[in-house]
Amino acid sequence: MYGPGDVRVEDREAPRIVEPTDAIIRVSAACVCGSDLWPYRGIGIEGLDWPSPMGHEYAGIVEEVGADVETIEPGQFVVGSFWATDNTCEICRAGYQSACVNRVPMGALGAQADLLRVPLADGTLVATPELPSDDLVPSLLSASDVLGTGWFGAVAAEAGPGKTVAVVGDGAVGLLAVLAAKQLGAERIIAMSRRDSRQRLAREYGATDVVEERGDAGVAAIKELTNGLGAHSVVEAVGTQESMMQAINATRPGGHVGFVGVAHDVAVPGMDLFWSLAQVHGGPAPVRRFLPELIDLIWNRRIDPGKVFDLEVPLDEAAEGYRAMDQREAIKVLLRP
Amino acid sequence: MYGPGDVRVEDREAPRIVEPTDAIIRVSAACVCGSDLWPYRGIGIEGLDWPSPMGHEYAGIVEEVGADVETIEPGQFVVGSFWATDNTCEICRAGYQSACVNRVPMGALGAQADLLRVPLADGTLVATPELPSDDLVPSLLSASDVLGTGWFGAVAAEAGPGKTVAVVGDGAVGLLAVLAAKQLGAERIIAMSRRDSRQRLAREYGATDVVEERGDAGVAAIKELTNGLGAHSVVEAVGTQESMMQAINATRPGGHVGFVGVAHDVAVPGMDLFWSLAQVHGGPAPVRRFLPELIDLIWNRRIDPGKVFDLEVPLDEAAEGYRAMDQREAIKVLLRP
Repeated sequence: MYGPGDVRVEDREAPRIVEPTDAIIRVSAACVCGSDLWPYRGIGIEGLDWPSPMGHEYAGIVEEVGADVETIEPGQFVVGSFWATDNTCEICRAGYQSACVNRVPMGALGAQADLLRVPLADGTLVATPELPSDDLVPSLLSASDVLGTGWFGAVAAEAGPGKTVAVVGDGAVGLLAVLAAKQLGAERIIAMSRRDSRQRLAREYGATDVVEERGDAGVAAIKELTNGLGAHSVVEAVGTQESMMQAINATRPGGHVGFVGVAHDVAVPGMDLFWSLAQVHGGPAPVRRFLPELIDLIWNRRIDPGKVFDLEVPLDEAAEGYRAMDQREAIKVLLRP
Repeated sequence: MYGPGDVRVEDREAPRIVEPTDAIIRVSAACVCGSDLWPYRGIGIEGLDWPSPMGHEYAGIVEEVGADVETIEPGQFVVGSFWATDNTCEICRAGYQSACVNRVPMGALGAQADLLRVPLADGTLVATPELPSDDLVPSLLSASDVLGTGWFGAVAAEAGPGKTVAVVGDGAVGLLAVLAAKQLGAERIIAMSRRDSRQRLAREYGATDVVEERGDAGVAAIKELTNGLGAHSVVEAVGTQESMMQAINATRPGGHVGFVGVAHDVAVPGMDLFWSLAQVHGGPAPVRRFLPELIDLIWNRRIDPGKVFDLEVPLDEAAEGYRAMDQREAIKVLLRP
């Protein structure tokens, strides 16, 4: 990305092993993330260097590994999170790999490419049992971020049996939070969405109700569906002031908000948080925690998260992929190198 | 209270049974709360009616009960929370009595008095096994709010075995959060305090470390004590922007903040909350959830929370009690009717 709205695909020097813990993978599929749209739209770009390599979601085949890599080997199909992590530090062991003391942001390496260096390969990558058939690739790619992030949102919101779960946001992460809530056993799942195609996919993923209202009206609609109390669990998957307050205010006292939208220009008033008695947990998803389970669910075709990719373009046409997502013509764009 | 800084003790009409679920109690001891100092200092007083009855912490002997009261009877010594609650609604049953759908704020009834009407007596009051000896009364009174609130802070912060717990604030609630963390089995307890007498009581209650720094320096000190990671659990018991951010920033990723300071003029920046990966939970403490256990611990003299009362004045001299707490000459003032 050369600047807001300016995406170009160019030849760069091929990545090579730098640290003995690195792997090089040939990317089978990459994609454009909702969070890539922030700089594309010129938001939060202070301090960014242009041009900037883009992309932090990837799945592909291992080409080469460094001398110290033990569990990953060339020829394997692997999925990794958008953070490279050691998966051995105290924070990783507690399940918060996205805050690993040795983490490396994959976005800085640029996964929207045909070859990618993955640091800390043993702690970052998870291999599939065998090479997957082509139709599984989009779902496996989704585990790299959007599925893992939606899943974390649902886990942070403590979605589970007997619970009513509301999901704020109908982008790929919100839709996959619906899928996650369903898998986690939620009794009732309310998708907040005003677009037909997304409502349909939300229902396919397990939504039992759809609320089209937003803001205070959205909160009122959730309360009306929950005997005036609010939802047990609310996933916030947008990242705006309105969506964050909608999530907090739609949660019953003692309920949980899982927020995974990157919270740009959000400030949560202390008194609202205090009186809500909500439990609020979120941030960059520790996708690595969930990857083995998610890959297993996909491998056994128990979930089909790849459906969120409603547009596929060759990597060379990445600029068109950004444009389509920015214009909301596509939920999520898959890029094929 | 006739206005900021203006506390008067006067004869008012004796309270009487209004609803058949009411009880009237003769107050054995009441006290001045840190939150009473907000209006005393003129903060957050928009919309208040003056004069306003004051006090929401109380313990005493039941004088009379309404026709529908079943579990409480005249002659019993009882403690109640600062919210009257039914203890039967869905929110109460989930342990969030402070958000009971039928709650009544005791502050509006004025517990700094010799007689007090307690609505929803069955759901609000907990009786001691027998009449307590005089020396137990301050501790039992503390269960009504400051102990219950500090306890909730420690529970919300998930203090427990193996955990390092930091407590921001050395008022009565903060000190009793230290006591709670100890009772809950915390391995290491860091009290953030710069006053000798309070540091001493914190250590007596179980603090293993004291940090005098505040703000960013306080956060750095906590990190230094925790291998750079931050505390597992942080209790926030002040209610200012500085203390709230100190609490969030001193928590390790995936750790828990329990905040019980009334968060006046606080706004939590979304990006700080996002990147902290902290789990934040707080608000008005559901003291009723903990009352049976707290009364049992006090009755069996396993804890001595009454030590936070370092000044006792007759109810007639309540104004002096407010002045002493406002000037930080006393941690907590007990009022004897």
